[in-house]
Amino acid sequence: MRKPVVVDVKRGVTSYDVAVRAGVSQSAVSRCFKEGASVAPATRARILEAAEALGYAPNAIAQGLITRRSNLVGVLISNLTNLNYPEVLAELTRRFSERDVRVLLFTLQTESDVPQALRQLWRYRVDGVIAAARLEREAIAQFDARGVPLVLYNRDGEGAPVSSVCCDSRAGERALVDRLADAGCRRFGVITGPADSHVSQERVAGATERLRERGLPFEVAEGGFDYHSGEVGLRRLMMTTDGRMDALVCANDAMALGAIDAARHTLGLRVPEDLSVVGFDGVGPAAWSSYQLATVRQPVKRMTEAAVAMLLERIERPDLTPERRLFAGELIPGRSARGG
Amino acid sequence: MRKPVVVDVKRGVTSYDVAVRAGVSQSAVSRCFKEGASVAPATRARILEAAEALGYAPNAIAQGLITRRSNLVGVLISNLTNLNYPEVLAELTRRFSERDVRVLLFTLQTESDVPQALRQLWRYRVDGVIAAARLEREAIAQFDARGVPLVLYNRDGEGAPVSSVCCDSRAGERALVDRLADAGCRRFGVITGPADSHVSQERVAGATERLRERGLPFEVAEGGFDYHSGEVGLRRLMMTTDGRMDALVCANDAMALGAIDAARHTLGLRVPEDLSVVGFDGVGPAAWSSYQLATVRQPVKRMTEAAVAMLLERIERPDLTPERRLFAGELIPGRSARGG
Repeated sequence: MRKPVVVDVKRGVTSYDVAVRAGVSQSAVSRCFKEGASVAPATRARILEAAEALGYAPNAIAQGLITRRSNLVGVLISNLTNLNYPEVLAELTRRFSERDVRVLLFTLQTESDVPQALRQLWRYRVDGVIAAARLEREAIAQFDARGVPLVLYNRDGEGAPVSSVCCDSRAGERALVDRLADAGCRRFGVITGPADSHVSQERVAGATERLRERGLPFEVAEGGFDYHSGEVGLRRLMMTTDGRMDALVCANDAMALGAIDAARHTLGLRVPEDLSVVGFDGVGPAAWSSYQLATVRQPVKRMTEAAVAMLLERIERPDLTPERRLFAGELIPGRSARGG
Repeated sequence: MRKPVVVDVKRGVTSYDVAVRAGVSQSAVSRCFKEGASVAPATRARILEAAEALGYAPNAIAQGLITRRSNLVGVLISNLTNLNYPEVLAELTRRFSERDVRVLLFTLQTESDVPQALRQLWRYRVDGVIAAARLEREAIAQFDARGVPLVLYNRDGEGAPVSSVCCDSRAGERALVDRLADAGCRRFGVITGPADSHVSQERVAGATERLRERGLPFEVAEGGFDYHSGEVGLRRLMMTTDGRMDALVCANDAMALGAIDAARHTLGLRVPEDLSVVGFDGVGPAAWSSYQLATVRQPVKRMTEAAVAMLLERIERPDLTPERRLFAGELIPGRSARGG
């Protein structure tokens, strides 16, 4: 029978305990848990067995102090209840986990949460940060000053030189407008996201630019990216256009779904016969058979893969210059717009 | 004009730099950033100003080694693309952030991800863990052995003495069955979640127990908690019952929404006239006007508040015994079931 091991939990298991049990030196244990250091295979096996039996795990925090790498990255995300972001966060976390990097998560309710999040990021000595949240130039400058790599997700540095991964909002919106105009739509409405959203600004600019090029009239209403604001926006636009609007461009899917429901269940309109509706993102519910939304799907897997790769590269080589990667979205013709 | 401060970024700003700029001793700087230590208000102000100007942040990791508190908690979550969990995660992160505690996030794709996640949790010396994921008794025992507090979210320890916060699945399902039976439904179908899901087991047990008590016949089909498996499950149950089923109990909302869409758009049934459908969770889309789902809403804000409070209490006082808190859900009568 194996001799039971008594460990003082309060003190915690140390490399010394493992060394004693494995019958090796303490420095052999240290080498075993250090990347790139050499240990004989048989010795390594004995050490790992002892470590497992004792529940020993090398202290990542202490190692981080020595190597100056915490193996922690920060992820700032501004609106987790947005239908698109849970998938983004799940993909980012999974990919970092595969590379043995941990995610310190910050969900931001308002702009004013940014300074507090940054203070914590510095305190925990994160190796790098991915931000799917609005950062002012001043905040971006702090990353430069500290030499902490930053990759922005679905927004750019608004002029500051910073790495970013984006879905091409403008090209996507232009394709959606063409999809509607080619199907015969003539009188357009546009529902924007929140005024301070960079994503919304880009999408609305793409749509209205293309509408002007094709000489098509349109009205604009402000929304908030949520389902309910799609309902409200549609009702407002219908009043502005005396009910003559036949196509609605929403700056994201959630608002498009709200607008479709309001059209059908409140205004008694048929979608797409009376009103064509398009969104942007390609979230799960957009494909549900009640909606079959015409939209542009963001290539989330490729975008998160790129963001993780760019960040890890820059953690290894802080001298790399910023890079912007722009991914084309996929046009989903859908059935919420005429001609689908 | 202010003299520019030159800092060697590679080396990082230290408390020494702050002391020099503020004209105080290095130990005064240390005291200023230590909880409970006394520093004269004027001195503190000078130090904070210097720290701000230099971008100095005390090293949380080094502090953690001294205080034996990392101010990190682990959150394990098994299925972030589940419609209910993004809200849970956003609430947990916000509440911890308010208490100055950071979240180390682990998203688990499969059961086999658990051991790896646990190894990382021990390496980072987390102060405690909230798990909205299935943990075997063996995994739970590791928390006890290491003295790391654990709170389970929407599952219990399956016999192991561990703290947990749950929504009362059985009571909720019983209320939903009564809601349907009282409206005149007579022939029932039940779509379960995945076979290994504790939440699904509890919900299905609650529903079928109540159906038996009321002497109502039912058939069961296995689903996977996702929208698509609601569609598939409905079609299978309709075959089993020769189309005579008039009420469908789904173990969560996503499957109920899939079943409603399949009933309407594939099978040509009217909901609720031909078929009444109920879910469980109270996710956002359940309230959309296309669905107006009859469901039980989990009190996510109160449940996350309780989970955070219970965990922080146990971090302060590791001797506290486990506690189970069971919250009643709110019955939403909805319009997807007759009599709503």
